[in-house]
Amino acid sequence: MIQFSINKNLFLQALNATKRAISSKNAIPILSTIKIEVNPNGITLTGSNGQISIENFISTSNQNAGLLITSVGSILLEASFFINIVSSLPDVNIDFKEIEQQQIVLTSGKSEITLKGKDVEHYPRIQEVAASKPLVLETKLLKSLISETAFAASTQESRPILTGVHLVLSQNKEFKAVATDSHRMSQRKLTLDKMTDDFDVVIPSKSLREFSAVFTDDIESVEVFLSNNQMLFRSENISFYTRLLEGNYPDTDRLLMNQFETEIIFKTQALRQAMERAYLISNATQNGTVKLEINSGLVSAHVNSPEVGKVNEEIDTEHLVGEDLFISFNPTYLIEALKALKSDTVRVQFVSPVRPFTLTPGDDSENFIQLITPVRTN
Amino acid sequence: MIQFSINKNLFLQALNATKRAISSKNAIPILSTIKIEVNPNGITLTGSNGQISIENFISTSNQNAGLLITSVGSILLEASFFINIVSSLPDVNIDFKEIEQQQIVLTSGKSEITLKGKDVEHYPRIQEVAASKPLVLETKLLKSLISETAFAASTQESRPILTGVHLVLSQNKEFKAVATDSHRMSQRKLTLDKMTDDFDVVIPSKSLREFSAVFTDDIESVEVFLSNNQMLFRSENISFYTRLLEGNYPDTDRLLMNQFETEIIFKTQALRQAMERAYLISNATQNGTVKLEINSGLVSAHVNSPEVGKVNEEIDTEHLVGEDLFISFNPTYLIEALKALKSDTVRVQFVSPVRPFTLTPGDDSENFIQLITPVRTN
Repeated sequence: MIQFSINKNLFLQALNATKRAISSKNAIPILSTIKIEVNPNGITLTGSNGQISIENFISTSNQNAGLLITSVGSILLEASFFINIVSSLPDVNIDFKEIEQQQIVLTSGKSEITLKGKDVEHYPRIQEVAASKPLVLETKLLKSLISETAFAASTQESRPILTGVHLVLSQNKEFKAVATDSHRMSQRKLTLDKMTDDFDVVIPSKSLREFSAVFTDDIESVEVFLSNNQMLFRSENISFYTRLLEGNYPDTDRLLMNQFETEIIFKTQALRQAMERAYLISNATQNGTVKLEINSGLVSAHVNSPEVGKVNEEIDTEHLVGEDLFISFNPTYLIEALKALKSDTVRVQFVSPVRPFTLTPGDDSENFIQLITPVRTN
Repeated sequence: MIQFSINKNLFLQALNATKRAISSKNAIPILSTIKIEVNPNGITLTGSNGQISIENFISTSNQNAGLLITSVGSILLEASFFINIVSSLPDVNIDFKEIEQQQIVLTSGKSEITLKGKDVEHYPRIQEVAASKPLVLETKLLKSLISETAFAASTQESRPILTGVHLVLSQNKEFKAVATDSHRMSQRKLTLDKMTDDFDVVIPSKSLREFSAVFTDDIESVEVFLSNNQMLFRSENISFYTRLLEGNYPDTDRLLMNQFETEIIFKTQALRQAMERAYLISNATQNGTVKLEINSGLVSAHVNSPEVGKVNEEIDTEHLVGEDLFISFNPTYLIEALKALKSDTVRVQFVSPVRPFTLTPGDDSENFIQLITPVRTN
């Protein structure tokens, strides 16, 4: 029967990170619990929603944990409820003691709370991923790659493969992440320092967003392991499992063009704010679009929603070459694309009013590219 | 046809304060608009939901407004939409121009937005309140009185009069505010510096909460005027009208007792945190209550929810006199009562397990008193 004492804040932090895999409204009731396994070396917290699983290890050797294990065992506790209770406790220290089968007492200061748990027997087993030959990635780099691509994945289940981000490692060191919902596409490339095995997988974009929330910036690097249908991201204390999406990802390389008719460089913020104003009016009508006019060296944006009103505005440019052009598109896609850009300026290249246009950072056109498909108007 | 230019931030601030009276889902569509009236001295913004009306005046003599009026007139504009547009504009200054009947153009920097408005003709008239012999109150004092009482008003429409706060001025200077939902009561008294006319009104607690949001802390005092069915709070630029509730407010004075069997002084925070833990467990069962035990000089709190768990905890006291007592109540009421208390300590006085108990600030027992009705258990 479990017995340990632990620092409240550290315990809470580990519980909250683990809870990111737990959905309170899961169709499988047992997945709303958190698994607490105590062994002589430390405590493993496990949460899972069937798609993502997180294991969080708190070691007895972690100074900040103040972890003292008197007796080992395991139990399931209702995750949200248990975390609320722990967070309400008065003292910096918590004593956790199983007093009879699946019944625990938390003592902290003069407060004593008894909770009912469940038997771990029915908790699903997390499929193992062979942890050999890891790909080691900087957490910061991986998170920035996620924030640059995952937003462009589809949220519609009509083509499930498009709800994922396509991660490809080729030539042992060329790493590429691509996402598209068929209206826009975002692709980030990077070259690894160390040679590693090639792979080609599609990871649900939701999993990647959770990854970014779970692996905080103080975790410098993660090891990445792959099995048939799962990917495992691992740091010193956290193992993050996600299932992979099955199916063939569309060939996005064929969408990239090498020539353009018009090229403009904008200040990223100025273009984004203009599009946000356009969106306020365009959003008031169904399928609202904004029209961009490039005419004799001047760029202007126009929305006309007969019911609501109009926007006309001139947008300053840093550089403009090529043909005049009128092109219509959904401003939401451009706003989200610009949010994903970290550079102060953005290079936009147009081929024609009916062909996707390209966005690249003003300061680096090679490694990060986005496409937006225009809307045909008459 | 209206034409003026104005500082964007000041305009936005006035629009947002006025919008507090405007509900976007009002059954009367015209009440989702904001009325903009421009006359040679300034601009009056008006919003109303039928219960509360706010008029906000921006004077041409206000330096921060940078207000330059070229042409006068009035128009109605969809409140939320208009405010979103104004807030998105790029420049510190906005030009507002009516180009044809009920059609305006906003120009700011290189952005030009055209919006459709409505004729002011159909906007309801705000009933006037004769502005003579005002009661002048410090805004801070009035807001603190609201935060100490309004939360205790009922949210149920079964007894509409209880959804209000009872404000009574008697003997020309004794001011009292009371609210009760029949489970708990909160009463704040204060003595005015200047003599004024007596009154006895019930104001919807919702109106008072909006009052607190609209009159920011930089507004030092407000004038209060009364008509048959309305109260008007007025500062230099803002007029805030609220309807009064009709009907007789119950006699709450008879609930106050002069004697007690047990008196305890707690640290406010310690008692509140203990109740918050109790609530986590009690809330998991229907009609969850906490039991407070005063036994041989020790005070402890207990919750037992057979399905979920138990709480037992000792609560430190600063002072304790009188009889032993077991009393059960809904911890939510005690938590909310303690939130309304600004003092570090709280004096709690009990008569019996079936009679309401009293809370007063540890440092001031005369002017602020709260009652909580216990729950009978067997």
